[in-house]
Amino acid sequence: MKGLVVLGSTGSIGVQTLDVVREMPERFQILGLAAGRNLDLLVNQISEFNPRMVFCADEAKRHRLAGNGDVVPMEEMVAEPDVELVMASTIGTAGLVPTVKALECGKTVALANKEVIIMAGPLIRSLAGTAGRNLMPVDSEPSAIWQSIQGEGGPISRMIITASGGPFRKSSLQDLEKVTPEQALKHPTWNMGRKITIDSATLMNKAFEVIEAHWLFDVPWENIEVVVHPQSIIHSMVEMADGSVKAQMGPPDMRLPIQYSMLYPERLPNRLIPHLDLRSPLDINFEPLDPSRYPCFSLAVEAGRKGGTYPAALSAADEVAVDRFLEGRIGFLDIPRILEEVLAKHTPTGGKSLEEIMEADRTARLDAEAAADSLPNRVLAG
Amino acid sequence: MKGLVVLGSTGSIGVQTLDVVREMPERFQILGLAAGRNLDLLVNQISEFNPRMVFCADEAKRHRLAGNGDVVPMEEMVAEPDVELVMASTIGTAGLVPTVKALECGKTVALANKEVIIMAGPLIRSLAGTAGRNLMPVDSEPSAIWQSIQGEGGPISRMIITASGGPFRKSSLQDLEKVTPEQALKHPTWNMGRKITIDSATLMNKAFEVIEAHWLFDVPWENIEVVVHPQSIIHSMVEMADGSVKAQMGPPDMRLPIQYSMLYPERLPNRLIPHLDLRSPLDINFEPLDPSRYPCFSLAVEAGRKGGTYPAALSAADEVAVDRFLEGRIGFLDIPRILEEVLAKHTPTGGKSLEEIMEADRTARLDAEAAADSLPNRVLAG
Repeated sequence: MKGLVVLGSTGSIGVQTLDVVREMPERFQILGLAAGRNLDLLVNQISEFNPRMVFCADEAKRHRLAGNGDVVPMEEMVAEPDVELVMASTIGTAGLVPTVKALECGKTVALANKEVIIMAGPLIRSLAGTAGRNLMPVDSEPSAIWQSIQGEGGPISRMIITASGGPFRKSSLQDLEKVTPEQALKHPTWNMGRKITIDSATLMNKAFEVIEAHWLFDVPWENIEVVVHPQSIIHSMVEMADGSVKAQMGPPDMRLPIQYSMLYPERLPNRLIPHLDLRSPLDINFEPLDPSRYPCFSLAVEAGRKGGTYPAALSAADEVAVDRFLEGRIGFLDIPRILEEVLAKHTPTGGKSLEEIMEADRTARLDAEAAADSLPNRVLAG
Repeated sequence: MKGLVVLGSTGSIGVQTLDVVREMPERFQILGLAAGRNLDLLVNQISEFNPRMVFCADEAKRHRLAGNGDVVPMEEMVAEPDVELVMASTIGTAGLVPTVKALECGKTVALANKEVIIMAGPLIRSLAGTAGRNLMPVDSEPSAIWQSIQGEGGPISRMIITASGGPFRKSSLQDLEKVTPEQALKHPTWNMGRKITIDSATLMNKAFEVIEAHWLFDVPWENIEVVVHPQSIIHSMVEMADGSVKAQMGPPDMRLPIQYSMLYPERLPNRLIPHLDLRSPLDINFEPLDPSRYPCFSLAVEAGRKGGTYPAALSAADEVAVDRFLEGRIGFLDIPRILEEVLAKHTPTGGKSLEEIMEADRTARLDAEAAADSLPNRVLAG
């Protein structure tokens, strides 16, 4: 029985993590649940799983946790001796400090909050090594790569990350100017949280996966490719030294990679996980990625390659820009405009310590707010 | 440096095996080469690789080997102490005795001659265990399955073997009656030997792969599926207990699975092996198999499931029928007619000894010849 803490338990990945736990109650004991603002759901989860430790990021609502377990900050929760596994399913910068703390304490971290490894790649790598030691990928693409390289001793010669292309794969850049949050939140294949869904529409999320894969699997940038695959059936591929390509496939459903990250290397049946149906015709397409359609993608990969605190600034600025877009205060293409401005202004440092990363995060947020405020007003469709 | 014997060195797989050896001369020493009838090519191969032992199945031509090494029967060749690896790339029953002998002597066998495991599944299994111990799959589909399960400790819950569907995927049964050898030899995706190309057109080859996979991977019949995938890019798939599907992919080229069977578990670059190109759009389709279009398929899988000497009789009868078809003496749909008659007439035994299997083979050949002779004469197109 693994002692489990779920950070971000009321988000999409957190809720599905609890779905998995519910299916195998003999495997996991929930020791802590932490959420952001959704207190109603958190209180329900607490009464169902009865964790010893609870937390809510929203101070104004924290009083509602009274009598529902000890209120313990996330970075203390993960350090408790009986905690073995931490599901880091928070969003953005929120998961950074608890993840670093958990790894420092020798815990296993299932990392869904990919911004953590974007912001602090070298630090996380130095604490956790590559995927499968202390750090378990949760995202479907790195999970696919991880599953595909099981049993392979040799190096990965090419990593092929698949991208659905998001809801605007066929839209012109001109059309993108007028995209509404409602349109951007309609992902064609995946049902995910709001931040990651917008990041998928801009392909920021795919650039994040390139950066994540670089750190998780120690593959040089030039050996990482992205290919558009609209059906999201093949979750990613790796090519080995002899040219053999291995892939992991399945209907788009996060419960599989979530469960794999929690049980690795074991596999158990789970009736909630849908199976690939080949009783009807199935078409799988690949097409090259056109980076000109996705300005965030190139900006972000470049920030990843530059290293230092650039990716931390990128991630922080993206969080601000996506928030503003979701609030209807900026347009869809203002997101890359803000990122570009923040990155151009950024004064990088080595980015190997938490302090430097947090400082880059703070500055980039301010810069992003200022950049957003200085955008010319435009009428947003909606 | 592995001591290697190539049985069937002048066939398609044998020639490509030598291509691999030529690319990594420091890895393999050719100790023996054995061929059927193509003496010109065999003599060339002998002068290039200078093996100590040589063989040719055609007695009338064997004198041409004089002065080209010791003429040694295949079953003695494989038993030599310095032989470590045997590439069994003979066709039909020819490889049965040498393969059994090699396994009895503790050699590693790379098995391209799949009829051996069709005919003698339980015997081969008892000698070699499942794939990867002493027996290395060479065929692209079992190789894909084998590559996909590397590092997976748990059971395979579903095996999905892909089938191109052959050249007549869209033909009606009526059209098939008039198919010529030339038409049947034009495989849409794979460049292979004549026997296996005809077996691919009838889907006999796919049924053989179902039987082969059953024995190589110890998967129950009901967990083996066949799906039509016309492009032959995904070479097969496995589903694990949690629903995760793993696949091995690449352009259709036998040198990859050949090399993997010879180097397992190592992977080495080989400039001859083409790489999956995703710089242009790529479509991959799956459609359910319609068994009514492929009478050989159902007949053969049924023989596999019945077990005993049924599969040996099936394989022997198929060899006779395919030969006759290639000679233009029977029609394409006469192949399943002959098989059906031979199997209906067959008196099975347990099929656990080489003697029983050889006896079933002998009888089935006679029955197949008789069945072919008694077919109504028909005018063959072509």
